[in-house]
Amino acid sequence: MESISMMGSPKNLNETFLPNVANGIKDASKITVGIIGSGDFAKSLTIRLIRCGYHVVVGSRNPKLAAEFFPHVVDVTHHEDAVTKTNIIFVAIHREHYTSLWDLKHLLVGKILVDVSNNTRVDQYPDSNAEYLASLFPDSLVVKGFNVVSAWSLQLGPKDASRQVYICSNNVQARHQVTELARQLGFIPIDLGALSSSREIENLPLRLFTLWKGPVVIAISLATFFFIYSFIRDVIHPYVRNQQSDFYKIPIEIVNKTLPVVAITLLSLVYLSGLIAAAYQLYYGTKYRRFPPWLDNWLQCRKQLGLLSFFFAVVHVAYSLCLPMRRSERYLFLNMAYQQVHANVENSWNEEEVWRIEMYISFGIMSLGLLSLLAVTSIPSVNNALNWREFSFIQSTLGYVALLISTFHVLIYGWKRAFEEEYYRKLRRIRRGWEKSHAIEETSGSIPHFSPERITVM
Amino acid sequence: MESISMMGSPKNLNETFLPNVANGIKDASKITVGIIGSGDFAKSLTIRLIRCGYHVVVGSRNPKLAAEFFPHVVDVTHHEDAVTKTNIIFVAIHREHYTSLWDLKHLLVGKILVDVSNNTRVDQYPDSNAEYLASLFPDSLVVKGFNVVSAWSLQLGPKDASRQVYICSNNVQARHQVTELARQLGFIPIDLGALSSSREIENLPLRLFTLWKGPVVIAISLATFFFIYSFIRDVIHPYVRNQQSDFYKIPIEIVNKTLPVVAITLLSLVYLSGLIAAAYQLYYGTKYRRFPPWLDNWLQCRKQLGLLSFFFAVVHVAYSLCLPMRRSERYLFLNMAYQQVHANVENSWNEEEVWRIEMYISFGIMSLGLLSLLAVTSIPSVNNALNWREFSFIQSTLGYVALLISTFHVLIYGWKRAFEEEYYRKLRRIRRGWEKSHAIEETSGSIPHFSPERITVM
Amino acid sequence: MESISMMGSPKNLNETFLPNVANGIKDASKITVGIIGSGDFAKSLTIRLIRCGYHVVVGSRNPKLAAEFFPHVVDVTHHEDAVTKTNIIFVAIHREHYTSLWDLKHLLVGKILVDVSNNTRVDQYPDSNAEYLASLFPDSLVVKGFNVVSAWSLQLGPKDASRQVYICSNNVQARHQVTELARQLGFIPIDLGALSSSREIENLPLRLFTLWKGPVVIAISLATFFFIYSFIRDVIHPYVRNQQSDFYKIPIEIVNKTLPVVAITLLSLVYLSGLIAAAYQLYYGTKYRRFPPWLDNWLQCRKQLGLLSFFFAVVHVAYSLCLPMRRSERYLFLNMAYQQVHANVENSWNEEEVWRIEMYISFGIMSLGLLSLLAVTSIPSVNNALNWREFSFIQSTLGYVALLISTFHVLIYGWKRAFEEEYYRKLRRIRRGWEKSHAIEETSGSIPHFSPERITVM
Repeated sequence: MESISMMGSPKNLNETFLPNVANGIKDASKITVGIIGSGDFAKSLTIRLIRCGYHVVVGSRNPKLAAEFFPHVVDVTHHEDAVTKTNIIFVAIHREHYTSLWDLKHLLVGKILVDVSNNTRVDQYPDSNAEYLASLFPDSLVVKGFNVVSAWSLQLGPKDASRQVYICSNNVQARHQVTELARQLGFIPIDLGALSSSREIENLPLRLFTLWKGPVVIAISLATFFFIYSFIRDVIHPYVRNQQSDFYKIPIEIVNKTLPVVAITLLSLVYLSGLIAAAYQLYYGTKYRRFPPWLDNWLQCRKQLGLLSFFFAVVHVAYSLCLPMRRSERYLFLNMAYQQVHANVENSWNEEEVWRIEMYISFGIMSLGLLSLLAVTSIPSVNNALNWREFSFIQSTLGYVALLISTFHVLIYGWKRAFEEEYYRKLRRIRRGWEKSHAIEETSGSIPHFSPERITVM
Repeated sequence: MESISMMGSPKNLNETFLPNVANGIKDASKITVGIIGSGDFAKSLTIRLIRCGYHVVVGSRNPKLAAEFFPHVVDVTHHEDAVTKTNIIFVAIHREHYTSLWDLKHLLVGKILVDVSNNTRVDQYPDSNAEYLASLFPDSLVVKGFNVVSAWSLQLGPKDASRQVYICSNNVQARHQVTELARQLGFIPIDLGALSSSREIENLPLRLFTLWKGPVVIAISLATFFFIYSFIRDVIHPYVRNQQSDFYKIPIEIVNKTLPVVAITLLSLVYLSGLIAAAYQLYYGTKYRRFPPWLDNWLQCRKQLGLLSFFFAVVHVAYSLCLPMRRSERYLFLNMAYQQVHANVENSWNEEEVWRIEMYISFGIMSLGLLSLLAVTSIPSVNNALNWREFSFIQSTLGYVALLISTFHVLIYGWKRAFEEEYYRKLRRIRRGWEKSHAIEETSGSIPHFSPERITVM
Repeated sequence: MESISMMGSPKNLNETFLPNVANGIKDASKITVGIIGSGDFAKSLTIRLIRCGYHVVVGSRNPKLAAEFFPHVVDVTHHEDAVTKTNIIFVAIHREHYTSLWDLKHLLVGKILVDVSNNTRVDQYPDSNAEYLASLFPDSLVVKGFNVVSAWSLQLGPKDASRQVYICSNNVQARHQVTELARQLGFIPIDLGALSSSREIENLPLRLFTLWKGPVVIAISLATFFFIYSFIRDVIHPYVRNQQSDFYKIPIEIVNKTLPVVAITLLSLVYLSGLIAAAYQLYYGTKYRRFPPWLDNWLQCRKQLGLLSFFFAVVHVAYSLCLPMRRSERYLFLNMAYQQVHANVENSWNEEEVWRIEMYISFGIMSLGLLSLLAVTSIPSVNNALNWREFSFIQSTLGYVALLISTFHVLIYGWKRAFEEEYYRKLRRIRRGWEKSHAIEETSGSIPHFSPERITVM
């Protein structure tokens, strides 16, 4: 398709910047690509170009020194020399040095300049590097591209690391040429249109988990709040009131009370946003009205909220499974056995307690299983293998079922809290021997009062 | 490659439907793409096209109303007006309204009509929508495509959601143009040839886990059967015979007896199909004879059977790991301790039992580890990173070893069942206090009879 | 881009090998592709070509017999006949039979021969198959390609299995044609330049986990060494010294002592290589000096070392979580309860021990959580969704934190070993009843000596 237009204007194309590419196609070793700069990126790009059959000429301020770092077949020379030998030139120097090319301006007329630069901060300059380059050399054809590619992935080849390369330029011919070059080098070029996209392209490698920031902050805030709440309620309060020292609970029990609360709150936030969006559309009676920004952002990071919810749920499961391994559990258990023998209770079975925990665990495993399916289908390549109906079945239908089941899971746990609070404090007394004489009296004297539920630890 | 033919016939191409595309390449803002329809898909497609440098003209029955929903740069006009301005027209309306374009027939001659429609059911009409459109406008160049793309993924850009776009047309030129357009928009076009493929393409977004259906039905049937069997055997039978109420076992123990049986049956079904296929080929002495359909289907859903097997195995592991957390286990344990003290058995160690369980767990973990490797290599992008030898080593060699080890795992478990059946009933009596006097008499009076294996719960 | 050169030399192109391709674009059914050979690959390739709208002519030594295995629309004929009908010919026969085409040499002049062959061993012949074919037919345009594709994935279509096809040729025109053909068939062609790359391309499908070999050998060696060490220390030594028979520990306890040591050693090897590389660069004061080969190889297989470390860590977690399920643990526990009752110790709580294990488990879960994040971002498609900064944050920052936390995890475990060694031997005596009278005397007579830590099993 890109060649069609060339048929309409063969002359100027062959005369300006295409001839050596055209020749090159007949004989790969004759396509010459220029690179200005001799840093890491320049070196890696050179290696990749050579490997794909291109001839490379490198322009350096100090060609003799630079030549040592490049393969022998590369022509390392002065800037002036380099730009005259080719029509497609990669500008692999920092923005601050763009003006050093000023003297070559007349040599760069009509040539393609590929700006591969990156900044160190988002929106570091008022204009993008590529736009700045274009303003310096208005008669050159500036193309932004390849900045998302690391020197490392250039050298390793297309099998590893990201293969997508974002390209934009105001000159469509130049854009198509660089697009095709990217394809030849084994990348998947993504054409983002005019040079005004270069700002966005330059910010791409600088983003650090943009969509994750909000959800992570929410998760950490929730976790901190519920951790402090549980810490005060289960450790500080008994300590102040009864001088019970339950500080050993901090690393596991308090953490494991925090995790599921955060997990289920995050999961409900995923689906709450959808409900609010639906309510919004119902209220205004249209689906074309734009959502307010906060809702829009919320909707966009649902995947991240869901994955964080899954992460917290999995860690909660890990903590819960480790509970029986703890030394504290063992001591309590041995003490219970001692109590049971001394109380002469042959059978401590409690049907209601048994059912509660069996159901609690059962619902927990079921919701984990469903959340796992949601998480697996979030892996990009699994996601891609699904069509829209399948994706929405899993993410919507199964997601709601998972939320429902995990709510049951929590409710059954809460039921327990309500019933056992009273016994909870007695446990401490018994265990700590704090009211030793009374406790012994109680357990040995009054068999009906003995019940292992009181001294459970879960 | 696509331009080669144009060299052979430059005239008719430039004259019929290529000129504005050709111009467009020189200046992106001059390529004009038409869209008939003003729904969600039309809107999202418009945004994507504009972003990629195209000019868009939208044809609507009510241009004034529709214009509000489109960006300002878009030319929203009447159908007649829209189709005259461009040579490539997306038909983004429902099949029922195709006939409303009848009046424009003379304007659509030689133009590319891209049918992006979807149906709500598989094989809803005798002919595909694209074929129907082609029959209405025989002088237009109908191309099927973009129907697998959701409005959502069009707006978000190529980074998220599925990037593959299936395209077919009887006119190769038109097909190649739409293919190239899809590539420019950031999709990966897949050329499926003649328009007769449109039926298949239209069914693609409607399929709902096609290959999963059979395996899921088999898994659910197996699970139901084995659940009922275990329920009758371990709950109903003891209840009817001895009035033992073991209904608390339903949510976890019975489920956890069902899961591993289903997992290993599904895993063996994966490899059984291969064995039958080999036997079939040996019998007929050729590998070119087509397998009967049932075997063909079976072979095709081996991956799904394997992943379901893994899922059941993982859930089985989760249930097993939760066993010690249960309240029921604790009560039984405390009662055991009570019994042991009263029976005055200092050491209840049983070397055979110890070895059996250590081996049982050991084989279980090993088979889970191997199944995990099989599952991880089923993730499409991991799978793609493997060559054929590596894939077959993991899926075939490691798969058979996993099946072997999990068979050992089950056999060791079965061994236990055989040995302990006798004690099993006694456990109930002891635990329930159903024959209390007798049980106490037995445990206190006859030390040699005390053995914790009887009262184990695993 | 590929058509540009054709503008420079339209004659010889149209006259030699392009005409039917050019025609084909106007009418897909007229593009003819030849295939020499009638094996599995030939058959699958035929089906795929037909599906994509090409006409296929198959050359066979025995056309009548071969015709049965091909679809009816395929023209199965003699070699001579086949090669005259097309200009692009897939050579789907074994290297040994290349000479059988000798007689057709004059018919193959200027035609594209695509060598799709594979060998059975790496570097089986001094020259690659494609180079050998090129030496036999110097006037043909030999292209290497499609050998990484299995017959299976050809038939299934582009949705499954690997989609990347590596292509090389000394003739750029031919290379571009085959590249474009690969794209039409739904593959992602990767151009590897001149025919000298064919050796590498032919070795690609033969590699079997190349980068995994070193790390796996290291992991197995470490595992063997630490297993033997633990076996001698914890089983043989007590047996020789005290005739304690602790052989039951082999399947789980000894294995579970080996796994974490291997996991943490592998994880430290990942980051050690980076430190050595940094030291090397500091020492020589440059980052352009090539690393010695051993360091280069080490750096390249860091991902594999890290994933193996994760695998061992996960299996270690599985073993640890299964510990409380074991029969041995139960017997020891019941015996402990018996001891506590007989020693009349009401409360066996030990604050230090409790804290140690809570911290041990806590650090373990945290390091597993971080390692899981590292592992998930190693999935190719997840990796691709990250930019360089995000990837390096996870792999470097989080990786070091994971190493630090898992070191704490191990140190806390080691602390236990140091403190409990003394009690460890006593446990055996008590449990085995080996010094029964003495043990009973000890536990019943001296209450201060009773402590369950001695008889713990973790």
